[in-house]
Amino acid sequence: MTPPSPTAGALPELVEAYRGRRPERLPIWFMRQAGRSLPEYRRARAGLGMLEACTTPDLVAEITAQPVRRYGVDAGIFYSDIVVPLYLAGVDVTIETGVGPVFADPVCDDAALARLTAHEPADLNVIIEAARLASAAIPVPLIGFAGAPFTLAAYAVEGRSSRDHLAARTLMHARPASWDRLMTWMADQSGAFLAAQVAGGAQAVQLFDSWAGSLSAADYRRFVLPYSARTLAWVRGQVPVVHFGTGTGEFLTALAEAGADVVGVDHRIPLDEASRRLGGATPVQGNIDPALLGGPWEVLETHVRDVVARGAAAPTHVVNLGHGVPPTTNPDVLTRVVELVHTL
Amino acid sequence: MTPPSPTAGALPELVEAYRGRRPERLPIWFMRQAGRSLPEYRRARAGLGMLEACTTPDLVAEITAQPVRRYGVDAGIFYSDIVVPLYLAGVDVTIETGVGPVFADPVCDDAALARLTAHEPADLNVIIEAARLASAAIPVPLIGFAGAPFTLAAYAVEGRSSRDHLAARTLMHARPASWDRLMTWMADQSGAFLAAQVAGGAQAVQLFDSWAGSLSAADYRRFVLPYSARTLAWVRGQVPVVHFGTGTGEFLTALAEAGADVVGVDHRIPLDEASRRLGGATPVQGNIDPALLGGPWEVLETHVRDVVARGAAAPTHVVNLGHGVPPTTNPDVLTRVVELVHTL
Repeated sequence: MTPPSPTAGALPELVEAYRGRRPERLPIWFMRQAGRSLPEYRRARAGLGMLEACTTPDLVAEITAQPVRRYGVDAGIFYSDIVVPLYLAGVDVTIETGVGPVFADPVCDDAALARLTAHEPADLNVIIEAARLASAAIPVPLIGFAGAPFTLAAYAVEGRSSRDHLAARTLMHARPASWDRLMTWMADQSGAFLAAQVAGGAQAVQLFDSWAGSLSAADYRRFVLPYSARTLAWVRGQVPVVHFGTGTGEFLTALAEAGADVVGVDHRIPLDEASRRLGGATPVQGNIDPALLGGPWEVLETHVRDVVARGAAAPTHVVNLGHGVPPTTNPDVLTRVVELVHTL
Repeated sequence: MTPPSPTAGALPELVEAYRGRRPERLPIWFMRQAGRSLPEYRRARAGLGMLEACTTPDLVAEITAQPVRRYGVDAGIFYSDIVVPLYLAGVDVTIETGVGPVFADPVCDDAALARLTAHEPADLNVIIEAARLASAAIPVPLIGFAGAPFTLAAYAVEGRSSRDHLAARTLMHARPASWDRLMTWMADQSGAFLAAQVAGGAQAVQLFDSWAGSLSAADYRRFVLPYSARTLAWVRGQVPVVHFGTGTGEFLTALAEAGADVVGVDHRIPLDEASRRLGGATPVQGNIDPALLGGPWEVLETHVRDVVARGAAAPTHVVNLGHGVPPTTNPDVLTRVVELVHTL
C-alpha cells in the first residue's frame, strides 16, 4: 500500500538535515501544510468538528498525507491541534471557527487550577494509532506536533486567544507557585502527546510556542524555558527536536537550550542573522514570509532564493515558512515553491 | 480655573526630558491613561460612541484631564483614536466594542484605494479646539496623539484588526505603487492630525505604530519608515516627537531615524539594552510591563525600580508602560506607581 521511500536504506534528507548533516537536496515542508488551505481537506473533514477529526486516526492519517501527495514536500506534519492532549484528558475545551480554542473553565484562580490539574493523564492510544497510520501513509518522515506549555497556558488562563497574553504573564509574576503547577502539568500533557507520536512512528518532533514572542528574554528564561525543556525531555534523544516560536528573535539561544536540535525562525529576522545569534552551530528551519505567498511569483521567487542563500550560513537548513500557511493561500503557489527549492 | 503650572516660567519637566535635558524629577505618564480603565471616564462617555466622544471638544478635554487629576502624572495624552482623522475626512469607519476600528470599504484593490484617497483632507478645527481646551484643562503638557501610517494601513487593508497584518504586508510587496499611494495618504492624514493638536497647544507629540512589530527590520525601513517620517515632518522642529511601537526591538534606530526625538520601548527589552541599540544618545520612554500592574505591589515595585535604574543608561528617561493601560487595571495601582517614581 505504502509507496517505497525514496530514501529507504538511509536516513531521509529531512532527518539528516535536522541532525546537522547536509543532505544532497534541500528539504522543505510548510507549517500548517495540512488543513484549512486545501480543498481536499475541506472535503475530507466536511461535517466533522476539529477535535473529532483530530481523534479519528484514519482521518488524521489522510489529512496528514494530503499535502505530501500534493506538494511533494519532504515531511508530513501530524495533523492535530495544540489542545488535543487536553481534550483527550477530559478538559472541557472546544475549537470555535474563527476564534480558536475556548476553555469552559479558565484558570482564573487556584481552585480552577486544581480542577484542571486533577485530570488524569489522557489515554493516548488514539494518537499512537493515528501517528502509525500517518507514518505508513507517507513516503517521507512524519513530524510530531505539540504546543509548548506557555502557549497552552496562555489559552487556559485567558480562556481563549488574546493579543498580549496579559493574564498568563501576570500570573507568572504574581503567583509563581501556581504558574509552576500549571506549566508543569501542561509540559507533561504536551510531552506525553509528543511521545505518543514518536511511539507511532514520528521521526522528528516540533514544539510550537507561537506566543512566546510576547515575552521578554528574561521572562522566557525564568518562566517558560524550564517547562518547554520538560516537554522535550519526553522525546529527547529519540528523534530530532525542532523548537519554533514567532517574535522570538531576542532569545533564539534559549529555544535551543530547552533541548532543541533545530530552531525554527519566523519571518522577522533573516536566517544568517538567526544563525549568528545561535552561535553558528545549530540547524535552522524557516523562514519564507507567508505574506509573500499572496504576491507575484517573481517577488516570491526572489525572496525564496534569498532565504535559501542566507540559510546556508547555518550548518543545515530545512526550508519552511516563517509561520503557518495562510488559509487564503493558493496551493499551486506552494507546489511551485517546493519545485524551486528542490532545484536550489 | 486652571491651577498654575508647577513649572511655570520654565519648560515643564516632561519637555525637558524629551529634549534630552535631565529634569529635577523623573517624569511619568501612562499610555492609555485616559479612557476605559477609569470609572469617571465611563460616566463621562456614557451613551456616546467612541468617535462621537472623540469629536466633542469639551468631552475630549475632560477625558484627557481625568487621569492628570487622578494620578498626578506629568503629561496629558490627547484622548482620541487613530482613525479619528479618517472619520473626520468622511471615511466610513466605526469603532466596535471589543473589536476596534472596522472599515466598511476595505482597501482590497486599487478601486477601493482610489475611493479612500479621493476623500478631501478633513476639517480639523474640532481637533484644534479640543486640544486647546485640553491644554487649558491640565497643569502639565498635552501630548498630541496619532496612529502611524502602517498601523492605519493595516486596519484599512484588512478592514479590521488582525494578528499578523498579512494583507497589508502582502500589498507592500505585491503592489508597491498602490502601497505608496495608500501610505502617503495615511501619512498626511496623521500628520495633519498631529499638526492640529500642536496648533491647539500640544507641547509634544507621540506617533503610535502599535503593529510595526509584525515587520522585519528590512521591510520596516523600506515600506514604513519613509511614510512615518512624512507624518512626523508635519510637526518636526515645532515640538518634541516620541515614536513608539511594540515588538520593535530589532529596529529601534529606524524609529529614531523617522524623525523622532524620543523612542518608546515596549516591555520586551530592558531600557539599558534599548539605549545601547540607540547608540546611547536618544531619550527613551517606557517600559513597565503592563502585566505586572495586576500582580502584588512588591513585585511591581521591584520591577518599576529596575526599569528606572536601567533607564538611567539613556540620556533621559520618561517613565511609562511598555504598552497601554489594560482595561482591568486598578487605578489606585497607577497612583502608587506615580508616587513611587516621583521619589526615585
